[in-house]
This record gives sequence, C-alpha cells and structure tokens, in this order.
Amino acid sequence: MQRYFTTQTAQLGQTVTLEGEAAHHLQRVMRGQLDDQVEIVTANQQAYRAKVTALQTTTVSLQLQAALPSTEMSRRVLIACGIPKKTKADWIVQKGTELGAAGFIFFASQYGIAKWPPQRQAKKLTRLRKIALEAARQAHRNVIPTVNIVANLTALCQQVKDIGIVAYEESGKQGEHAALVQTAQQLRAGQTLLAVFGPEGGLAPAEVLQLRQAAFVPAGLGPRILRAETAPLYLLSALSTLWELC
Amino acid sequence: MQRYFTTQTAQLGQTVTLEGEAAHHLQRVMRGQLDDQVEIVTANQQAYRAKVTALQTTTVSLQLQAALPSTEMSRRVLIACGIPKKTKADWIVQKGTELGAAGFIFFASQYGIAKWPPQRQAKKLTRLRKIALEAARQAHRNVIPTVNIVANLTALCQQVKDIGIVAYEESGKQGEHAALVQTAQQLRAGQTLLAVFGPEGGLAPAEVLQLRQAAFVPAGLGPRILRAETAPLYLLSALSTLWELC
Repeated sequence: MQRYFTTQTAQLGQTVTLEGEAAHHLQRVMRGQLDDQVEIVTANQQAYRAKVTALQTTTVSLQLQAALPSTEMSRRVLIACGIPKKTKADWIVQKGTELGAAGFIFFASQYGIAKWPPQRQAKKLTRLRKIALEAARQAHRNVIPTVNIVANLTALCQQVKDIGIVAYEESGKQGEHAALVQTAQQLRAGQTLLAVFGPEGGLAPAEVLQLRQAAFVPAGLGPRILRAETAPLYLLSALSTLWELC
Repeated sequence: MQRYFTTQTAQLGQTVTLEGEAAHHLQRVMRGQLDDQVEIVTANQQAYRAKVTALQTTTVSLQLQAALPSTEMSRRVLIACGIPKKTKADWIVQKGTELGAAGFIFFASQYGIAKWPPQRQAKKLTRLRKIALEAARQAHRNVIPTVNIVANLTALCQQVKDIGIVAYEESGKQGEHAALVQTAQQLRAGQTLLAVFGPEGGLAPAEVLQLRQAAFVPAGLGPRILRAETAPLYLLSALSTLWELC
C-alpha cells in the first residue's frame, strides 16, 4: 500500500488533505479513486490507514481510519559520512533510510577526494532530501530522515547526541568487537547515537584522535574491510538486529 | 595492503607464483617492486603476508612470510535471489561479498520482471564472478564467493544446506522477529545456511508455500520494508553481528 507524509496534524476519524507532489502522485501516477485506501503519516509521526474521500484538481482529501504500528527504531541513529565520491551519497541516503537512520550528516574530511563547493550544497541537499522522502515512503517509515552538511569535523563534534561512535577499520583488524554491542546496550529509548564514517580513503589519524578527544568511541564492524558506503548499512542492520530482533 | 588469490597450495616460507590478471595487476597497475609486501590467499583459503622475490614478464614470485588471521564467518551463508532488475545483481554480489557471503545463487521467480535467457547466462556469470573476486580482494576475504544460476525454485530447494530460511516481508509485518536469531543460534561452525530472497515484486504465495514445504523457515528482517537488493545485506550484517560481535 502506498504511504504518504503530510505536515498536517490530525487524529483518528479526522480528515487530512494532501497537496503538491503527494496529491499528484496519488491522483495522477497511482490513478487513485474515491474509497481507495492508502497510508498517511501525520505531522506527529503517527501512521494511519486512510480512505480517499474527495479528489480535487490539485488536492486529495482522506479520512484517517485506523492507527498503524510504528516502524521506527526505539533509538535515533544519525549517520555522519565524509563526503563520498560520485553518487555514493545518494545510495547511502536511500539504503540508510530503508534501514532506519534518523538522519544523515555529510562533512568534508582530510582524505576525501570529492568536494561539494558551497554554491552546490543547496542543490545536493534538495536532491538527497528527495531521495530520503521517497525511500521513507517505500520502506514504510514514520519519519523522513533529515539530511544536512556541516563544514568540518569540529562542527560535527558539536552535533547534539547522547553517544558518539566512530567506525574504525583498525579496531576491527585488531579484533575489537565489543564496543558496538556495548553502545547498543547503553543507549536508552529515545536517545540519539551519532556514528561517524570516513570517506573512501578513511579518516586521518588526526581526525580519529579529534573524535576520541570529543568522547567518540572507536567501534569495529567485524573482521572484513567494508567500503565507505557499506559500513553505515552494516551499522544500521546491526543495531536493528540488537534492538528489534534479539 | 593489496590481497591476491592463487590456486596454488603452499606453506609458510614457500614461494608462490602469481600469473594472469593478478600478476598484471601487481606488476603493471600497482607498479610492484622487489621486496614489496602484499597479501596472498592460497588454495586452502589461508592468507599470508608475502614479499615479492622475482618479477618476470607475465608472472610474479612471492615468498609467504607470515600467516594472517581468517576474516571468514564461522558458518557459510548462501544468498539466493530472484533475478533482479538492471544492475542490482552486480551490487548484491559486490556488497554481499564485502559482508561475508559464501556464495550467491540467482533463480527465475514468478514475480520477477528481469529475465536472463540461457544464451546470456554464461556472460552474466563471468561478470558476476569477476565482481565477487574484486570485492573479495578489497574486503580481505579468505574465500571468493561462488556465483551460480539455477533454473527455478525446485532446483533451488535441492541445493545442499543445513538450514534454509526465506526472508518474508509478511513475517516482519506481523511482528515475527525471533526466527532469524534462533536460526543463527542453531547453526554450528562449518554449517551452511541458504537464505532465499524474492525479486522486486517479492515471492508469490505459492513460492513461499513450496519453500515452507521444503523446510525453509520464514524469517522477518525487522519492521521496515526493505528493497529486494537491501534485504540480503541486512541478513549478512545481522548474522555477522550475532556471530562475530556478540
């Protein structure tokens, strides 16, 4: 069933009105009809099964008929990545949204080859936020992940979080395997984890040091070497396993 | 450090000779010199740190100097996927190799839109096996995953395995979350898990029934809807978490 997000607040039994792209999609792309059923997520992140009650030129009205269970992780996981090459940011956001990330933060890092000059950042963000919205609809999320860019590691260290970790290849190689599980156990419902990943070339030793001094815990992600774009997906799947399956 | 696979059998202190693409890569692409160090995985899946002892026109000789720890999962995980669209098979193999899969099996399924006609299968397999080799080198695997195509679900059910599971969206939706963890706990070291995933449209109810009758256990992968190409990566990350981090 198609899922749409609205910025409106409404309760069970009340009516919401889709506008813009969502209304266009339901009416034109999906050829929606009166009485069709879809899923609506309201501004307070509650999902409902809803019935189409009116189709106007550019809007669609729907009545909220049944509350649906949340598909969100109990803790918020923010994925911070050194700016990666080519279209890898697109798919970190797409796959990371499917896998439950609360948000994404991209930052310029020492070994990063790709640059996002300030004049192109607004366009990048628009594109990545659209990918997050589409993936959130497909994955039946209750939350559209945030996407942001910060200037550097210092700005990243200042982001609000309860626990910070840094995915560190050397930790995995040295057989460190407990930090991720311990972090998952420490984090309480509603708290925020900020997980930092390097770009293709990894993080520089000075960057790892700066993160450690800012209380980020180095965490290994198993014995194999994961590419920059694979490591965040491993982390999100691991946390889902520990919080949602165990 | 670059890692190369050889089909030769050798022990610590002995010499192996790289040929073909591996020799070309070490000599021409990496501009290898005498005394350079690389990693060599021998035919018995043991990795060594090795030193270049001779560079010939089309071959490179290396002495095995130190045994390296294995990066393999203790159990073998075979990923079976309904043939997916476009280049998705490429990246299931690339990412799945990084995440530790022992092999990949593609099969024609009822809701699959993509077809691999018999006359194109040999070319497909050559391409996918090359991707698996490259990803195994990059991820520092001890094993190059196998890649195969079987004609249909009946042939898939006959593959050798100790436990079979089928990733089933409806299981996840209905809140089933214990099957994967239980399966991970049941599987002993050296045993083989065969995990089946549908194509973009999912598996047909009759296909799920056939798998269940062949003793495949339906397993949910958390509450969010994962795309066909994301679900195998979740599974591999989850099993690594349970076997290698917990």
